[in-house]
Amino acid sequence: MKMLKVVLVVADGLGDRPVPKLGMKTPLELVDFSIVADLLHKSAVGLWDPIQPGVRPGSDTAHLALFGVNPLNNYPGRGPFEAIGAGAILHPGDIAFRGNFATVDKSMTVIDRRAGRSIPEAKQLVKYLNENIGEIDGVKVEIYHATEHRVAVVFRGTSLSDAVSDTDPHTEGVKVLESKPLVGSEEAERMARIVNIFTRRVYELLSACPLNSKRVEKGVPPANVILLRGAGKMVKYPKFSERRDVNLRKAVAISATALVKGVCALLGFETVTPRGATGGVDSDIMAKARAAVDFYKQDYDLIYVHVKGTDSASHDGNPEAKVGVIERTLKGISYIVDRVDLGEVVISFLGDHATPVTVKDHTSDPVPVMVYAPGILADGFSKLTERDARKGSLGRLRNTELFGVLMDYSGRAEKFGA
Amino acid sequence: MKMLKVVLVVADGLGDRPVPKLGMKTPLELVDFSIVADLLHKSAVGLWDPIQPGVRPGSDTAHLALFGVNPLNNYPGRGPFEAIGAGAILHPGDIAFRGNFATVDKSMTVIDRRAGRSIPEAKQLVKYLNENIGEIDGVKVEIYHATEHRVAVVFRGTSLSDAVSDTDPHTEGVKVLESKPLVGSEEAERMARIVNIFTRRVYELLSACPLNSKRVEKGVPPANVILLRGAGKMVKYPKFSERRDVNLRKAVAISATALVKGVCALLGFETVTPRGATGGVDSDIMAKARAAVDFYKQDYDLIYVHVKGTDSASHDGNPEAKVGVIERTLKGISYIVDRVDLGEVVISFLGDHATPVTVKDHTSDPVPVMVYAPGILADGFSKLTERDARKGSLGRLRNTELFGVLMDYSGRAEKFGA
Repeated sequence: MKMLKVVLVVADGLGDRPVPKLGMKTPLELVDFSIVADLLHKSAVGLWDPIQPGVRPGSDTAHLALFGVNPLNNYPGRGPFEAIGAGAILHPGDIAFRGNFATVDKSMTVIDRRAGRSIPEAKQLVKYLNENIGEIDGVKVEIYHATEHRVAVVFRGTSLSDAVSDTDPHTEGVKVLESKPLVGSEEAERMARIVNIFTRRVYELLSACPLNSKRVEKGVPPANVILLRGAGKMVKYPKFSERRDVNLRKAVAISATALVKGVCALLGFETVTPRGATGGVDSDIMAKARAAVDFYKQDYDLIYVHVKGTDSASHDGNPEAKVGVIERTLKGISYIVDRVDLGEVVISFLGDHATPVTVKDHTSDPVPVMVYAPGILADGFSKLTERDARKGSLGRLRNTELFGVLMDYSGRAEKFGA
Repeated sequence: MKMLKVVLVVADGLGDRPVPKLGMKTPLELVDFSIVADLLHKSAVGLWDPIQPGVRPGSDTAHLALFGVNPLNNYPGRGPFEAIGAGAILHPGDIAFRGNFATVDKSMTVIDRRAGRSIPEAKQLVKYLNENIGEIDGVKVEIYHATEHRVAVVFRGTSLSDAVSDTDPHTEGVKVLESKPLVGSEEAERMARIVNIFTRRVYELLSACPLNSKRVEKGVPPANVILLRGAGKMVKYPKFSERRDVNLRKAVAISATALVKGVCALLGFETVTPRGATGGVDSDIMAKARAAVDFYKQDYDLIYVHVKGTDSASHDGNPEAKVGVIERTLKGISYIVDRVDLGEVVISFLGDHATPVTVKDHTSDPVPVMVYAPGILADGFSKLTERDARKGSLGRLRNTELFGVLMDYSGRAEKFGA
């Protein structure tokens, strides 16, 4: 079978629902598709449920499924992926927690679960902790700042367990919880001890930290503890080059989003953020398209372009901005189409999940997907919308199935059987 | 519930994609369906993904799913099924490998991984080996010729393991590999030893074989070793009569294809090849139809007719031949319809997987399926094509679901629950 290159363009949070201020149309229904009309006409269209109908995807789980790894069987929980999204590079066996800076009194009773939420000193506090916390029982500790009061905490050592309870009581007015082993293993007992030492040491370090003294002087609650929840043990994902079901050697992900780049790196992608690509609605999408063409002309089999602005606009509840980012993404696709050989490439455009502007958060609605491949049974559509996509010949694909379809149309799928 | 007989007709590799030389129509779109128009009109239509969207089926995995066994959970790898396709009758616990006749020099360095590919003496070489190789550590060895340089090798004994590495280096200019245990068990260590003794013994026997001396005289590379890959341990499949989910006592498969007959035999079918049925495009399909009617008139619950010519034409990239085989298959179906009681039978026509003539290999495209049953919600279609089938009331069935539907419409499915 002849192997073709694959160019995959995702507009994050693309799928949507009817918007009252758009006359009950969806953002996609207001988009001008004329710039990619020819490509769309030759493509098959359908819907994709990133996980399965009714399951709201995260960007991490959606991207795992998009690249052929079923997150229902291979997901260690949010802890490790929060850490990856905050810039951590995790190794299999690492234990990661989600965490909050919080405020406790001397008896370790939680006064404010978010330490006032606004913590301009957060990055400095994290740096201070990382410089001073040291190892605990031979285990390395890394803290990463995410957003506002949110952090991720990584424990790295041998024979660690994620079977331990949260220290976060998930409410205020009660004491910080002791972490307890959830199973009767030595590893879990040791891990709980390490977590409890961590909590005490963080409290002592932060209580003595001048940045907190200044917060108290200003009358804001000190960020004097980190509450942990959702322990997860990092798993090993197969890199493309190790997989037996597909023939992919080199893949590149073009994105400005740490979580997406982190997931892609786990799967064996090189990751690149072109200058001007910001992950926001103002991102230079054409810079990503130019990068995609550069990689296409090299020996890359799979070129992935990730556009975050659609999701940002959705979280802001701004349908007009979403339409604008989609149209700039289509210009990027058109730039790529003009510079590749349509007899030698598979091109797909889709969302990684729906983020309706009326909801401002990820939902489980299936997302529209377009697949161009030489010789595909084309639907001849002139638009790609939530409504039209239901009638497309790709039908409704789930989870890893879309990746299989892309691998098959590009001649890169191994036969299952004789 | 009244139990009906089921007649299932598969045109192997039926599904296709638009073909340039057919004006971007698929072979099915050029087929004259008038001879089965009445049956089709009373049938429900849909699509079937033999494994799941994006997974390219083999004939073995597709037939397992077709008869209600999910190959994603019950497939030992290609080794055993290559052996079955080459005529072996396997028992649970047998270890089977795919193999190649190859050419090595005295240091066991691989000179030609396929021994020139054309080996007219292959069957004689296999016979010579089977007569002389003997047992290895109490384990029986059987070699089967498949096609050209390809063989399958079966090891039969007690407590054998398939957790051993290939001897095939998958490249030339390097030595034949020692098989190594892939897990730390006694069984795997013994199996690796047996495989390595096999390799040495085959090399010695073939090096001394006069057939190879003649090849060398003719200037073609001697077939002086067998390279093994893909060890698999045969599993036990439930026979129809043992299954709790369906009520089927007697089933017959009418086919001229060893792999299909082998899979059917594993599941409890009797298997029959009528005179004139060849598995090629010239096969006497009407002989199969006559056999189907004969079995229908006896006490068989499930009569399966397999037509291979559609797949052969597809592998040859010959759409006109494919149209011809489909039309002769429809004549066979019409012959059957004229001789059964449509109030007492379920009739289904479909492909076991797609083999687009433009690709010349199995792809994951869903295949059109037609189900006639008394009282079914019919779609009233006049053709069965890839495009029309999307609109059919059967929707898009996956894996074992189609078998469940056939069993239900024939009153043979057990209720799941109270």
